Amino acid sequence: MKKSIGVDLGGTSVRTAIVDSEGKILKDLKESSYAKEGPSVVLSHIADMIESLGDISDCEGIGIGVPGPVDSERKVMTLATNLPGFAGYPIASVLEERFKLPVFVGNDANAAGLAEALVGAGKGKKIVYYVTQSTGIGGALIINGKVVSGKNGYAGEIGNIIIDRDRKKINGLNIGAVESEASGTAIGRYGKEALGVETAIDVFDLARKGDEKAWAIIERMSEDFAQLLATIAHVVDPDIFVIGGGCSNASDLYFDKVRVYYDQMVHPAMRGVPIERAVLKEPGVLGAAFFVE
Amino acid sequence: MKKSIGVDLGGTSVRTAIVDSEGKILKDLKESSYAKEGPSVVLSHIADMIESLGDISDCEGIGIGVPGPVDSERKVMTLATNLPGFAGYPIASVLEERFKLPVFVGNDANAAGLAEALVGAGKGKKIVYYVTQSTGIGGALIINGKVVSGKNGYAGEIGNIIIDRDRKKINGLNIGAVESEASGTAIGRYGKEALGVETAIDVFDLARKGDEKAWAIIERMSEDFAQLLATIAHVVDPDIFVIGGGCSNASDLYFDKVRVYYDQMVHPAMRGVPIERAVLKEPGVLGAAFFVE
Repeated sequence: MKKSIGVDLGGTSVRTAIVDSEGKILKDLKESSYAKEGPSVVLSHIADMIESLGDISDCEGIGIGVPGPVDSERKVMTLATNLPGFAGYPIASVLEERFKLPVFVGNDANAAGLAEALVGAGKGKKIVYYVTQSTGIGGALIINGKVVSGKNGYAGEIGNIIIDRDRKKINGLNIGAVESEASGTAIGRYGKEALGVETAIDVFDLARKGDEKAWAIIERMSEDFAQLLATIAHVVDPDIFVIGGGCSNASDLYFDKVRVYYDQMVHPAMRGVPIERAVLKEPGVLGAAFFVE
Repeated sequence: MKKSIGVDLGGTSVRTAIVDSEGKILKDLKESSYAKEGPSVVLSHIADMIESLGDISDCEGIGIGVPGPVDSERKVMTLATNLPGFAGYPIASVLEERFKLPVFVGNDANAAGLAEALVGAGKGKKIVYYVTQSTGIGGALIINGKVVSGKNGYAGEIGNIIIDRDRKKINGLNIGAVESEASGTAIGRYGKEALGVETAIDVFDLARKGDEKAWAIIERMSEDFAQLLATIAHVVDPDIFVIGGGCSNASDLYFDKVRVYYDQMVHPAMRGVPIERAVLKEPGVLGAAFFVE
């Protein structure tokens, strides 16, 4: 069975693993990413971690998932908010030279989406749209088991989609961008305004206790999030939406609401498309390994 | 060179043609579609038209473009507003039996988009998003020369995408659906309200004469339309947008406005994606012929 090395590089930690083609993690390591030290330190540390995985002679390549848009042909990040110095840096070359293996670079949401499409909740489906609803909102389009990353690597940067023009402008995103209204951060912000709590988890906890203001936040978020999914559906009409990220841990509180709103915003024949929670524990490192072709 | 037969079936007329793989129309015919007579009459009339094209012995198949969403595996329309009796009707079987050729069925916007992607304004581009801005607004996603039609054949039904929740509900579409705000019909409706004229063409003509109210309509439409394109870009990040349909005949009046609004609504690296006018005279019948694989 084919094996590859997956690397899930984040601003805080990095995970490396040997993965087989069925998505089994055969060996893995997680350490600090040393992001602040710059790309040269980060990448030689990753190389050391890969060596620590043991015998990799039967691995066909290395795939790296990074937090930001990637030009996958040039193998560089085009924007690297959480990885100082990585924008435009030749990520692949250090590892290619050291291991004499082909190296593939892609966005972390694309990695997670690819893993869910191949061996997770979207397994066997032709068109999978993966959405991560966490600190931010991102996504990935997978068609016939291949990521569609787009001209600039920005396919799936759906957090910036406008769902309501009459909201506030937050950060550098569009006014009424869905990430500013339905991400975990947004739920926390509304929680602070209405309830004096700090995080999305606080809001979910209060809702479980029957707090009406918490439920009102969840209701509005569900409608906003459903509008995002309905919008995506009119563009690519996927076989399934797979929802990952921290918010989806509270799927029992709001997925049914999202499904009802969604059905109201699409043509009748489009209703009932599966909107399912992601199922993989480590989709990032798995999907990175699946970047290897 | 490979040849195919294209059929562009509309509610009013039908066009059939022999097309080569470079998109040259070798012979064509246009007649009434007899849509009100029902599918059996319509299809045997199409078969007669195909016979009238002359020698088709070197044609590899027949492709049909129809006005509405299609289940392309079952080869049936799932919604057929302008073709009574066609929803669920086995369109391909009559022609398959008569000509012993493979028959492919697809949506007319997908056909037009495919033609523009293969031999028109999008030639040579990897990801083409085609948008038709006419009586309604529709679209098509073409990746590597293949139409992505979606689970239910609704990929590209972008007219129903919400661009502003604070507008009126028109027909069966969502409140603030872009088709209700930026289609030719919508421009005509705003023209009637503000200027007492009837059609989008009237509004464009008045704008050319310097009428400020007409320009205000075009300005708002351009922003709404740009928001649609920006939304699509965040989902699939195409290499080019190709804009067809009647409105695009007035591209000189509003495409530059659309480009400016678009750049304001996307991430910096996504700016400047080509937003170009469709170039083909008969994309519908050409693209239908290209459905043949």
